[in-house]
Amino acid sequence: MNAFRRSGFTLGRFPPGPTCSIGDVPGVRVGHRTLVRGEGAEAVRTGVTAIIPPGDPYAEPLPAGAFVLHGHGKAVGLAQVLHLGELETPVLLTNTLAVFRCADALVTWTLRRHPEARSVNPVVLECNDGYLSAIEARAVTEGDALAALAAAGDDVAEGCVGAGTGMVAFGFKSGIGTTSRVVGPYTVGVLALPNMGRREDFRFLGVPPHPLPRRGEGDNPSGSLIVVLATNAPLLPGQLARLARRAALGAARTGAPADTGSGDFFLAFSTGWRIPRKSERLVVEFIPDRSEVMGDLYRAAAEAAEEAVLSALFAATPIVGRDGQVVPTLVRS
Amino acid sequence: MNAFRRSGFTLGRFPPGPTCSIGDVPGVRVGHRTLVRGEGAEAVRTGVTAIIPPGDPYAEPLPAGAFVLHGHGKAVGLAQVLHLGELETPVLLTNTLAVFRCADALVTWTLRRHPEARSVNPVVLECNDGYLSAIEARAVTEGDALAALAAAGDDVAEGCVGAGTGMVAFGFKSGIGTTSRVVGPYTVGVLALPNMGRREDFRFLGVPPHPLPRRGEGDNPSGSLIVVLATNAPLLPGQLARLARRAALGAARTGAPADTGSGDFFLAFSTGWRIPRKSERLVVEFIPDRSEVMGDLYRAAAEAAEEAVLSALFAATPIVGRDGQVVPTLVRS
Amino acid sequence: MNAFRRSGFTLGRFPPGPTCSIGDVPGVRVGHRTLVRGEGAEAVRTGVTAIIPPGDPYAEPLPAGAFVLHGHGKAVGLAQVLHLGELETPVLLTNTLAVFRCADALVTWTLRRHPEARSVNPVVLECNDGYLSAIEARAVTEGDALAALAAAGDDVAEGCVGAGTGMVAFGFKSGIGTTSRVVGPYTVGVLALPNMGRREDFRFLGVPPHPLPRRGEGDNPSGSLIVVLATNAPLLPGQLARLARRAALGAARTGAPADTGSGDFFLAFSTGWRIPRKSERLVVEFIPDRSEVMGDLYRAAAEAAEEAVLSALFAATPIVGRDGQVVPTLVRS
Amino acid sequence: MNAFRRSGFTLGRFPPGPTCSIGDVPGVRVGHRTLVRGEGAEAVRTGVTAIIPPGDPYAEPLPAGAFVLHGHGKAVGLAQVLHLGELETPVLLTNTLAVFRCADALVTWTLRRHPEARSVNPVVLECNDGYLSAIEARAVTEGDALAALAAAGDDVAEGCVGAGTGMVAFGFKSGIGTTSRVVGPYTVGVLALPNMGRREDFRFLGVPPHPLPRRGEGDNPSGSLIVVLATNAPLLPGQLARLARRAALGAARTGAPADTGSGDFFLAFSTGWRIPRKSERLVVEFIPDRSEVMGDLYRAAAEAAEEAVLSALFAATPIVGRDGQVVPTLVRS
Repeated sequence: MNAFRRSGFTLGRFPPGPTCSIGDVPGVRVGHRTLVRGEGAEAVRTGVTAIIPPGDPYAEPLPAGAFVLHGHGKAVGLAQVLHLGELETPVLLTNTLAVFRCADALVTWTLRRHPEARSVNPVVLECNDGYLSAIEARAVTEGDALAALAAAGDDVAEGCVGAGTGMVAFGFKSGIGTTSRVVGPYTVGVLALPNMGRREDFRFLGVPPHPLPRRGEGDNPSGSLIVVLATNAPLLPGQLARLARRAALGAARTGAPADTGSGDFFLAFSTGWRIPRKSERLVVEFIPDRSEVMGDLYRAAAEAAEEAVLSALFAATPIVGRDGQVVPTLVRS
Repeated sequence: MNAFRRSGFTLGRFPPGPTCSIGDVPGVRVGHRTLVRGEGAEAVRTGVTAIIPPGDPYAEPLPAGAFVLHGHGKAVGLAQVLHLGELETPVLLTNTLAVFRCADALVTWTLRRHPEARSVNPVVLECNDGYLSAIEARAVTEGDALAALAAAGDDVAEGCVGAGTGMVAFGFKSGIGTTSRVVGPYTVGVLALPNMGRREDFRFLGVPPHPLPRRGEGDNPSGSLIVVLATNAPLLPGQLARLARRAALGAARTGAPADTGSGDFFLAFSTGWRIPRKSERLVVEFIPDRSEVMGDLYRAAAEAAEEAVLSALFAATPIVGRDGQVVPTLVRS
Repeated sequence: MNAFRRSGFTLGRFPPGPTCSIGDVPGVRVGHRTLVRGEGAEAVRTGVTAIIPPGDPYAEPLPAGAFVLHGHGKAVGLAQVLHLGELETPVLLTNTLAVFRCADALVTWTLRRHPEARSVNPVVLECNDGYLSAIEARAVTEGDALAALAAAGDDVAEGCVGAGTGMVAFGFKSGIGTTSRVVGPYTVGVLALPNMGRREDFRFLGVPPHPLPRRGEGDNPSGSLIVVLATNAPLLPGQLARLARRAALGAARTGAPADTGSGDFFLAFSTGWRIPRKSERLVVEFIPDRSEVMGDLYRAAAEAAEEAVLSALFAATPIVGRDGQVVPTLVRS
Repeated sequence: MNAFRRSGFTLGRFPPGPTCSIGDVPGVRVGHRTLVRGEGAEAVRTGVTAIIPPGDPYAEPLPAGAFVLHGHGKAVGLAQVLHLGELETPVLLTNTLAVFRCADALVTWTLRRHPEARSVNPVVLECNDGYLSAIEARAVTEGDALAALAAAGDDVAEGCVGAGTGMVAFGFKSGIGTTSRVVGPYTVGVLALPNMGRREDFRFLGVPPHPLPRRGEGDNPSGSLIVVLATNAPLLPGQLARLARRAALGAARTGAPADTGSGDFFLAFSTGWRIPRKSERLVVEFIPDRSEVMGDLYRAAAEAAEEAVLSALFAATPIVGRDGQVVPTLVRS
């Protein structure tokens, strides 16, 4: 159960899966590598989070889609997702300046499994944790990224772990948040990395907190938001891109502003069918757009994204960051 | 003052302009042509709404941008807006099957003012009012569209007028809604035509009404949402496209689901500078993306869109539609 | 056999189908309505061309995709093609100011077959024939559009017929051009409406004519280019959008410049499978991107587009246009 | 003078600048780092090419745009270019698996100049040289990338240098090619990295070589094409994206097929104005779309791209690659 629901809250009309996490999508695993060391100007509060799809994504890529709400981000690997609708590696999340080492690590990871590979399209998404972490120290190594991948399992930890370690959202400490929704025979899982918004942007279950706190310490007006969706519903790439858009609607309901310095990226992949690298004909049984269940999947994606953003705030714990910065948590712990 | 504020509500952090309407953007005028006639299977409950930018849009097109959240719509004229960033006619709103006659009317309107014109790019957006109106009767004529244009003035009527006549949103009677926001020296005006969402999607100021009404009569699960933004802030076309995206975030806060049959189109234009048809060099003084005011404009666009959608519901009045259909209003009148 | 091949030329590596036309794709029919009347300032030299896919496109839409190379065009219906990947009506081609009446005619055409329809997405593409025709007279009526649809058959006429009547490309008289390519078990058919380019842009089979003629009468520097592709290869919407892009590459080989005033639109649809309006699950057997045949289909689309553009020039016949304008033909007739 | 012109050929209607290279755009510098070592299965034939815009791109980003013709590529940094229209680092070209280390090197490069930077958007483009080079050895280091940057100067070397070292196009040895065009007061410079196409795709000055060689050794059917354009013409981001599209048209004239495994990326930036990181208002004097010179710039971009691709083939020299592979050169040397 995620932190949001452990606190007694619910949200939306679709029930969550058994673990309230992206891990409810069969075969999807998540791992974290957390880096907390040093203090003052050298404080490192960062990490890497890995989302690994089931099976062998390189031999049998997964259909995927994405939506870029605001493009001030350093996402790697989106051209192939956006243009060709395929995901062929795990997805890593990390800090803004660590993206490329993590992408390089995904090349290593893939070559170990497929020494014959000559082209690899790693997907890495990021938010900027420079408020709490000495991001310019570039602490994340290839080893850290591989460790996050190696740590992947069915249990999805939330809060200040992995890429979530140094996140700040709405002036509150943020981190990793996750949840899922069950829509008939399908599950939609979401993992969010919220790092956006000023205090006064925040809406909890639709409502701004009262009294409206003044803009203050911990504000992160230009931060970003990453949401990764997984589903076992058999959808075409274009449909997954549309599913990803609904996560942006859900996030908007938390007040996420898509500010000018924001990299708001939404990625969706399906485990419901595969695109084997070697094949001349493929048969896919998919859900057409006009099916009733499509609208339910869209709504489920939106409400799950809203919940995952909130759960990241609920799961967050206090951290003393760079220069002694402390960002308050939403929930007193 | 719009219907939402007349009811005593406020929303957001930026103050509205003096008339709480898109007319607060200097020179922007709105006109309606309302068609209410017949009963039973022949009931016509439809119309045309015209938004006219200041000056001569054909001689001096305005910078413009757009965002298509979900593309199940028949919008006309968006290729030039999306690819070239220009608006060269007024914008008309109407029903799904009347789009093309309205576009043809904009050609007429433009040729009357510019007999030398050989190419005209009319912009017409639409929602489907077939639940309350005999849309297949195609009642809207060129004359109706020209009448809406001729009726344009500074006062912006809301509710069941013009294109709003037959709208239904969240299972409530909807119509035209409008508001504005003042951001320093700039005004952002919004006009919304909400026609989307089931009852259970609805959130008022972020919160679902309790008890949650069951899905029932008047539902319009596949309806669409049109939002037009005008601003006197001098923005480049790409920035206006980004401003339009924020209206989608605001609408999401009302619960707008972007369902599978939805045509969710967001259009933004600036009156802050012009692109004269004949010129070899242009000088534009614009607000760069990293300016503090850009984030405020984005937020203002989102909250204005939310308010405009709600105001459409507040302004709506009961109508007996086709086959005697009656859709309840949100506010008892 | 198209005009290009009747003149003894060939182009490319893939063989054409039996009729060298878009009609080689089983079930695709084409009809023209040609308007030639009046002289001097009142000369009307325009028309409508209809491309009708097999079966009932409204009950069972076809997968489709599009590419906008340069967006100075008034295309109608592309939002649903681009965003949802569906074609649900025939495709009409006409002049710039007649687009909307033709779109309205497609609504009429569809409602006659489906009186229950409440939403129709007509697709109409256009080029500007104002150099040879009194475009501002708006001669094309709904009746003309319906006549083009009614005239549709397996034989595809080229040259100065239908929408091709008033076209000018590279300073030569242009019109309708068509061809096809056979790629293993599949056929790719192309119909082009070229109306772009200055004389000095022109390349015939890759080579500029020598001596390079000076820019002169008949130039149409800002004209547009429309290419429609049909195939029976079972492709997904995203793949059809990519197929459409290859037509732009083929057209580029004729020197098509995509000038600033150009509306260069490329539309592709597949007859290889359908998307029935009522269905909860669909099974499609499609060709994956990495299949060898995909690259062949791409190449075939490019070379067919090049040939169709050239064939439009070969098929053109002299016309005395508005104000006595005469545009030379490429081939002396 | 580039290799193409040194061989006595010319192409197009616009004159080249004095050096026939992208270096003709004032302040644009290019550097290469070439890696040729080992033999047999361990042969490394790869490198890095750096294109450095004038001034301080981080403090004062340049307006930029891009076009993705076919997205099977690992380009880094395009989200900010495509969505926000800015370039804030030099551009690096390298092999497919070295992209991320090169991106990481651009972070290093930027942090050295701007220790205060907390967010950097490196732009790196790639082609796959795995046919001639042991790409899976991942020979390129951060040091190599920095060396390419350090080597940048006004002279632009072509051929088998830098990222061009292992390129193959149309079954011929390829490499770096460059040229420029002068359009009135403006210069358009192009640097191409062609790595695409089968022998039978190739067109030299529009014409396939005769007799048509059979498909054979050295074919690279799924290779990619990278083209970088620089201009001192003051264009808005949207216009630069459109300029980039014209490079795809020029490349198409060489027969570039945009095959299924191709990453065909076109990037354009302007040195004509800057977007200082800290500014609240910006004044830009730009060329509007309808200006006559815009069409000339488009045509110049297309013909320069065609020439740069050809010049890469002319400049290439024989290399013995991995496993003793030798790819013939177009021109006997």
